[in-house]
Amino acid sequence: MDKPDFSNLRCIYINCTLKKSPEKSHTATLIEVSKRIMLKEKVQVDEIRFVDHQVAYGIFPDMKEHGWKNDEWPEIFKKVINADILVLATPIWLGEKSSIAKKLIERLYAMSGQKNNKGQYVYYGKVGGTIITGNEDGIKHCAMGILYSLQHIGYSIPPQADCGWIGEVGPGPSYGDKEWKGEKLEKPAGFDSEFTNKNTTFMTYNLLHLASILKKQNGYHNYGNSVDKWEEGERWNYDNPEYR
Amino acid sequence: MDKPDFSNLRCIYINCTLKKSPEKSHTATLIEVSKRIMLKEKVQVDEIRFVDHQVAYGIFPDMKEHGWKNDEWPEIFKKVINADILVLATPIWLGEKSSIAKKLIERLYAMSGQKNNKGQYVYYGKVGGTIITGNEDGIKHCAMGILYSLQHIGYSIPPQADCGWIGEVGPGPSYGDKEWKGEKLEKPAGFDSEFTNKNTTFMTYNLLHLASILKKQNGYHNYGNSVDKWEEGERWNYDNPEYR
Amino acid sequence: MDKPDFSNLRCIYINCTLKKSPEKSHTATLIEVSKRIMLKEKVQVDEIRFVDHQVAYGIFPDMKEHGWKNDEWPEIFKKVINADILVLATPIWLGEKSSIAKKLIERLYAMSGQKNNKGQYVYYGKVGGTIITGNEDGIKHCAMGILYSLQHIGYSIPPQADCGWIGEVGPGPSYGDKEWKGEKLEKPAGFDSEFTNKNTTFMTYNLLHLASILKKQNGYHNYGNSVDKWEEGERWNYDNPEYR
Amino acid sequence: MDKPDFSNLRCIYINCTLKKSPEKSHTATLIEVSKRIMLKEKVQVDEIRFVDHQVAYGIFPDMKEHGWKNDEWPEIFKKVINADILVLATPIWLGEKSSIAKKLIERLYAMSGQKNNKGQYVYYGKVGGTIITGNEDGIKHCAMGILYSLQHIGYSIPPQADCGWIGEVGPGPSYGDKEWKGEKLEKPAGFDSEFTNKNTTFMTYNLLHLASILKKQNGYHNYGNSVDKWEEGERWNYDNPEYR
Repeated sequence: MDKPDFSNLRCIYINCTLKKSPEKSHTATLIEVSKRIMLKEKVQVDEIRFVDHQVAYGIFPDMKEHGWKNDEWPEIFKKVINADILVLATPIWLGEKSSIAKKLIERLYAMSGQKNNKGQYVYYGKVGGTIITGNEDGIKHCAMGILYSLQHIGYSIPPQADCGWIGEVGPGPSYGDKEWKGEKLEKPAGFDSEFTNKNTTFMTYNLLHLASILKKQNGYHNYGNSVDKWEEGERWNYDNPEYR
Repeated sequence: MDKPDFSNLRCIYINCTLKKSPEKSHTATLIEVSKRIMLKEKVQVDEIRFVDHQVAYGIFPDMKEHGWKNDEWPEIFKKVINADILVLATPIWLGEKSSIAKKLIERLYAMSGQKNNKGQYVYYGKVGGTIITGNEDGIKHCAMGILYSLQHIGYSIPPQADCGWIGEVGPGPSYGDKEWKGEKLEKPAGFDSEFTNKNTTFMTYNLLHLASILKKQNGYHNYGNSVDKWEEGERWNYDNPEYR
Repeated sequence: MDKPDFSNLRCIYINCTLKKSPEKSHTATLIEVSKRIMLKEKVQVDEIRFVDHQVAYGIFPDMKEHGWKNDEWPEIFKKVINADILVLATPIWLGEKSSIAKKLIERLYAMSGQKNNKGQYVYYGKVGGTIITGNEDGIKHCAMGILYSLQHIGYSIPPQADCGWIGEVGPGPSYGDKEWKGEKLEKPAGFDSEFTNKNTTFMTYNLLHLASILKKQNGYHNYGNSVDKWEEGERWNYDNPEYR
Repeated sequence: MDKPDFSNLRCIYINCTLKKSPEKSHTATLIEVSKRIMLKEKVQVDEIRFVDHQVAYGIFPDMKEHGWKNDEWPEIFKKVINADILVLATPIWLGEKSSIAKKLIERLYAMSGQKNNKGQYVYYGKVGGTIITGNEDGIKHCAMGILYSLQHIGYSIPPQADCGWIGEVGPGPSYGDKEWKGEKLEKPAGFDSEFTNKNTTFMTYNLLHLASILKKQNGYHNYGNSVDKWEEGERWNYDNPEYR
């Protein structure tokens, strides 16, 4: 079977580091590994560092209409909605995703009332994944919450849609660090992790495969999942349990 | 666009209640709502109550080879692997999925070393969802762990792949209960929850849509995600970060 | 046994709502129930709405020294460190604590390198609890992460240190709402929840009991838990597992 | 200040490994490090491997009264209730505690209707902690759920009440392993982790300190937390929010 062509796809990576540019983000270093695959596959790629933007708190599409002076979310959302794939990347703090990652999820959720022209939630047909870095513990826990949120608002999740790197328990170098406690490391931390490299590769390709498949289908058929139709009273083959 | 045909699909529901048959399982009552849709769509449906079976603890495919006298897991696994869709259903205890649900996940994971004929993990191409019931709190938390585990071992997760019912915080009737503290309820608990009914419907149809799409494709292309090829040294467009 | 006297204690409630003052916070409404008990017990009580303050992101004590123009955290920290009890209160969004709550945890954690005059982490001897409100699902999940973080940095957690209110699954009124979808409710939502009222009461009193007990002891003895002594080589009765 | 005397305390470790005796449990190896401190401090120590016992599923005190042929839980519960300290130890599987650990929590919870002679939940005055081992990821996530459950049913949690060991992300040796993939390790895995050793020591001593303090107080005063009194109508300084 021929190598699939992914050149019609768009992917956006949103880095939820706590550090503003131009500070070094270890999470960005692992994003880079995935992004380079995407670029070689001729995918159109965008990357945003969320903390660099003035994004308000809240659960409405535009918080400028709710008392906040600034809110760059509406512009960022346009990029999210134009992309077929969203990769939410976050560092780990105290075993959990960053507060910036949670803010992004709140704002993604704030748009979930919007619908596409099939009456489905607006993220239907898009594909989501996550990249997580830390020096100690918590990739899976962070991924659980992130992937759950993405599927809950309408994203599809392909197999093995998370990747990340952590070192041995306790303080230590972060992903890509070249030294630790003043001593030069033989190799940048995590670069030779077969596990991280494999998972990053598989995640990236699985995001591409599922996004490509769904794009060909023009997303999901709206039989059984259209909010508009449900509200009009359509129930397809659902039966009210009361009448059993 | 025509109504899709789902009659070539198989779905297995595994109920992870703590109660052995023939005790009443509230979780089974909500499974029924989803199952009835499947049956009307002519899907082949199987349902297992996991606690009724002698399943050993452990992380090997057959624990009878590791000191356990009984282990019905190998037979259950055959049903899992023959189905296109797995729905893991669980009650909530102390805000978390049941110990039976965790045992099922451990045994599913125990098979993740197996590969299909494309060199992918054996659950690739299959689709997963979850049904959760309790009287108080924790649907999303349970779903996070369950859906994470399923995608981690190779299942794909369509949009809104979880559904459930809980009542107001604190003790109260469970899903489908007809009385509470000796008083007859006007309607069985949860049966008129628009939210639960809609989510159960959408989950069921989205599982069918994604399973149908993936089955037509014969699962995922193995470009970029074959364990066998990775182990042979194939890296596709992945670049070792060391050489940058 | 005599009724204990709690009048030498201080408690700070930090409300992690996403809504800036003077917007109505449902979480504040439940804080009020706990706070009124404290006040009647003559505890000195402080309450902060975290989103009203310019708090920077980051994991250093004062982010003004790390490129941020504003950072009110150092002033807030003074209040936290002067209090014997910290109650972190949060709304639920998508089954998880708010991004504001996560930011507060990140900043509390940022101070965990500080030590008291016994060489212990600076929060030793203090007591923590949590209040959570939402209209649908997730009290326990939020409490898990919050209480974990508090004990991890040095707080002690008394029995039943969480309380909250959620309604039946799906959209609905929030705690204290007097109407829903334009219709007046018989009583404000949640006000007659025996479960919420009992848990709020028990949490409040257990925080007071443990804070009072620990204060009388002048916190924890530093035998076996002093970072300073550990770093000097003291190991008490710990034995290196290598030499067994 | 004098070194405290802990010789009147009892501690029970429950190992929730999936492996039956006499199989090697890595979790037992880390339990040993904590237990040796306890023994040197003259604490009475008990250790149980939960999977070795015929414990039924369910949420009643004795499942033999609910259709199960065997249930050793009532005997194990006697040991739990006689101890001042409970340490729940678990391996990590797929980023979560073992199914055995969840079963133990379900059974502990099954007794939470019992009350002591002050009308409080029966675990009041006792202290809880957790030990977690794995080769890859998830200490904090496991600890969140375990410590939450313990405090929810009445245990008190001292500062830094969790400890554990994991290696770098991906497959690798488990705690105490002396070889990996056929090659001898320089030292048993994790034995030289300063972080694990320190946390295990601090957890052990903090459990002892808090148990000792609470034992001297004869547990918690029942002002504000007695279930019996609440049910009789006592509300202490709690005010119904309706009357505000």
